[in-house]
Amino acid sequence: MEIRVVNLKEKADRIHDLHAYNLIARMNNIDFKLVKAKREFIWHRHDETDEVFLVIEGQMKIALQDRILHLHEGEMTVIPRGVEHKPICDTVCTVMLIEPSGTPNTGNAGGFLTDTNLEWI
Amino acid sequence: MEIRVVNLKEKADRIHDLHAYNLIARMNNIDFKLVKAKREFIWHRHDETDEVFLVIEGQMKIALQDRILHLHEGEMTVIPRGVEHKPICDTVCTVMLIEPSGTPNTGNAGGFLTDTNLEWI
Repeated sequence: MEIRVVNLKEKADRIHDLHAYNLIARMNNIDFKLVKAKREFIWHRHDETDEVFLVIEGQMKIALQDRILHLHEGEMTVIPRGVEHKPICDTVCTVMLIEPSGTPNTGNAGGFLTDTNLEWI
Repeated sequence: MEIRVVNLKEKADRIHDLHAYNLIARMNNIDFKLVKAKREFIWHRHDETDEVFLVIEGQMKIALQDRILHLHEGEMTVIPRGVEHKPICDTVCTVMLIEPSGTPNTGNAGGFLTDTNLEWI
């Protein structure tokens, strides 16, 4: 794979479609994906993998069963495998997701929001 | 592991020792480490894994055999396994390294700069 320098905010500026998954880097079998979102997602969990959220622009919440995490620009968290969570973007935010290639966005929940399409940007 | 929100710049502010490896998150077997550096490192490669560099503060260069990458704040790159590289911080910079737990910082080169100590911050 070509070695390139990725500017996270420049990549964010290129994203015009909400809720599309944009691949910006891959390390071993781990995808680095940018998604621009404004929605309350569904409750789900990933039984096979932990998942990293890193906020690039804006802010978001991640509801857990016992509390709500608040993430601002420059903040990250790791949701461990098996932990139910619901990402919530009340306003438009850009998030970098880091997780193994092929991890479905809706985890165990499935349903019509499932989207494993990826485009390199 | 406890679920926590990590503010990257706040963590960077807490680092006072140059060239120490500070663990801030772990996803599956992948470590997220912050290092504050001001040095020209050694040429080395990692035969077993790709390696991510994401600049949190300042700027750095990564010399490759045929060119030099320039990374500024908010920019990242993936150095593929087997690729010789030499990280260079002419001025103090804070970098997040993302790579599998146990990856030695000096890769195949070894030597006195080898440091696999990690402290959670």
